[in-house]
Amino acid sequence: MQSVLPKGNAIIGQSGGPTAVINQSLVGAVLALRGVTAVKKIIGMRHGVSGLVADQLVDLTRTPLKQLEALARTPAAALGSSRDKPDPEYCARIVQACRRNNVRYFFYIGGNDSSDTCRIVNEIANAQEFYQLRCFHIPKTIDNDLVLSDHTPGFPSAARFIATAFAADALDNASLPGVKINVVMGRHAGFLTGAAALARPAGRAGKDGPASGDHGPHLIYLPEVPLDPQRFLSDVERVYARLGRCQVAVSEGVQTEGGQPIVTTLAKGLDRDAHGNVQLSGVGALGDALADHVKKHLKNAGGKPVRVRADTFGYLQRCWPDVSPIDAREARGAARFAVRMAVKGELSGSVAITRAPGRVYKAAFKAVALADVAGKTRRMPPEFIQGHCDVSEAFVKWCRPLVGKLPEMARL
Amino acid sequence: MQSVLPKGNAIIGQSGGPTAVINQSLVGAVLALRGVTAVKKIIGMRHGVSGLVADQLVDLTRTPLKQLEALARTPAAALGSSRDKPDPEYCARIVQACRRNNVRYFFYIGGNDSSDTCRIVNEIANAQEFYQLRCFHIPKTIDNDLVLSDHTPGFPSAARFIATAFAADALDNASLPGVKINVVMGRHAGFLTGAAALARPAGRAGKDGPASGDHGPHLIYLPEVPLDPQRFLSDVERVYARLGRCQVAVSEGVQTEGGQPIVTTLAKGLDRDAHGNVQLSGVGALGDALADHVKKHLKNAGGKPVRVRADTFGYLQRCWPDVSPIDAREARGAARFAVRMAVKGELSGSVAITRAPGRVYKAAFKAVALADVAGKTRRMPPEFIQGHCDVSEAFVKWCRPLVGKLPEMARL
Repeated sequence: MQSVLPKGNAIIGQSGGPTAVINQSLVGAVLALRGVTAVKKIIGMRHGVSGLVADQLVDLTRTPLKQLEALARTPAAALGSSRDKPDPEYCARIVQACRRNNVRYFFYIGGNDSSDTCRIVNEIANAQEFYQLRCFHIPKTIDNDLVLSDHTPGFPSAARFIATAFAADALDNASLPGVKINVVMGRHAGFLTGAAALARPAGRAGKDGPASGDHGPHLIYLPEVPLDPQRFLSDVERVYARLGRCQVAVSEGVQTEGGQPIVTTLAKGLDRDAHGNVQLSGVGALGDALADHVKKHLKNAGGKPVRVRADTFGYLQRCWPDVSPIDAREARGAARFAVRMAVKGELSGSVAITRAPGRVYKAAFKAVALADVAGKTRRMPPEFIQGHCDVSEAFVKWCRPLVGKLPEMARL
Repeated sequence: MQSVLPKGNAIIGQSGGPTAVINQSLVGAVLALRGVTAVKKIIGMRHGVSGLVADQLVDLTRTPLKQLEALARTPAAALGSSRDKPDPEYCARIVQACRRNNVRYFFYIGGNDSSDTCRIVNEIANAQEFYQLRCFHIPKTIDNDLVLSDHTPGFPSAARFIATAFAADALDNASLPGVKINVVMGRHAGFLTGAAALARPAGRAGKDGPASGDHGPHLIYLPEVPLDPQRFLSDVERVYARLGRCQVAVSEGVQTEGGQPIVTTLAKGLDRDAHGNVQLSGVGALGDALADHVKKHLKNAGGKPVRVRADTFGYLQRCWPDVSPIDAREARGAARFAVRMAVKGELSGSVAITRAPGRVYKAAFKAVALADVAGKTRRMPPEFIQGHCDVSEAFVKWCRPLVGKLPEMARL
């Protein structure tokens, strides 16, 4: 089979926000490519396609196994990442750089922007005579917003961090009671914010409706459900009146009914990234604005102001090194599967993860077309959302197996 | 020996900001008290002395060992904590509540405010005829700001979180380069912020002066050294020009030359706590203000604005459940030592940790007088500080053994 494959080099890059397991995918691809006889050199791009077009490359053909395995256990993109979102002209330069380096196999680890880059690069290369370039996308995103997949490598480890953080922080907030707002990453999709519900003891989530138990988080605000500041306030008041405290999970992407990010209505002077998006991560503005909103209006039984605090969990969500074991395995497996697609003679493609129904967790990889993933965004399905401020039991059942065994926490 | 001890009940409470190991101290005290024949009941105060005076008590005399051990591994104050800082009148009510409950042994787990509460309660009880109350302070603070101790239970686990967070975040920042500012807890003492230096590979810290290596953190700002916003900017510029990125550790307590918290000069509308202190935790204002300051002035080689992000690590610093093994052991040991002081017939006291000189870590507990600890604040000694924006190698040598083995992180 391998005899019909074009002979040449393979190149691999990492793109977008790093994750705790993105290097598992890098190492999975490199090790699998070492077994492919048609592949001569295995080249890494420094900082994704921006390094490729600038000839900032690193030879991974003979990197020692021990070093690779140490890298695999290390969070963040070992090759460096890039936020570049190439247009057709940029992609033409990528194809040129690939030709220059005799690259026949192009692997790009990233989210839906990266699969779009793969798609355009593939199209441009296909249009050129006498040059074969096969392009494969290896999925990665803590946001879990790729279509056609049950979940995405990177998400389970980030969800593990969020579940652990909310469980510990809920106990902190029970120690010194007040309103505690925690802002979670996720511009469009609420999966990661929803993972906060795993902090509740197993089997409790949504049982008697949102915020019915005394375990935090008591309120969960997703970007899929419009946030009304007035209703938000009465939600917090209701929980606070019942328990004397309230732990709130808020997605950084929460929006008004009109589709405006809440933070743009509450704070000024916000950064925009290279894609023109408002900067939601790396600033505490949303948490502080919501906390101020609660402070202004909420009083305790004695008429005194209530203790209100906000934490924005920030970049630790995507780089904390205590990863989900399933995630580490799947991130490596997805890359291996992409190499296997190439070896089978596929000309391009992406990898999806599917999950078998049943009580025991069982997942498989599936080949999908680049065009079916590229640039598309998955959001929380309605059956994962309960009311306007909680996730459903179906979400919890879906999410819990992914994160691995969480630290046990006891109460008096 | 125990026959001369007053017969009655023992009471124990937790105070101030919780830590990841404060329940080890609770469990250590309860288990040790079970071996004291003069002690009839072991009572827990709900939310410290505020629960005691309101008769919100919990009987721990026969709580099952298995439950206690599970609590010991759980972060945050299992009994609930309190920020009350009792004056003599409040302390008189505490003594009354102790008499009401036939308490002869009073144990309070907390920082220097809590040792002061112990001291006042002890004085008031001593002045009363026909009532013996023996008061012991069990040290706890992530700030490490208790005098007479090499370090304080709670600090090593928080330092472990900070070292892990900076190591992972440095790789994230190397993946997508920019200026990254991380704000660390610690109002007066820079020990916890300094622990960021442990994120550098062993033996590198301060070797060739501050920020000489390429590993983050590149700049460390402590509350002990005045922060000049202009100098801060040129520090960041210097590192950014050399590496194309810069990771900064900033204590929430950084001050101007005149002793004003930097945040009060940069942001408005700040909360004050029950002690009249400006709220430094639970808001992102300082990080955002410093990030804005850098954004306004720093340009990259192409004259474009630089990517600048800030994270405020928040309450996860004190409740993250991946604790330092030494810290867990010492938090329990300090409480056991306090009970041993009581059994020996001491009338009051606090516990200090001393460390033996030498390459191998070896620590011991020592009895100290309440008045010698109460209300006093330890700051970083000059030999732990290097220049205006780093810690010294002496600090790193002091700190590294405390945090336990950190996750290994590799680079290409």
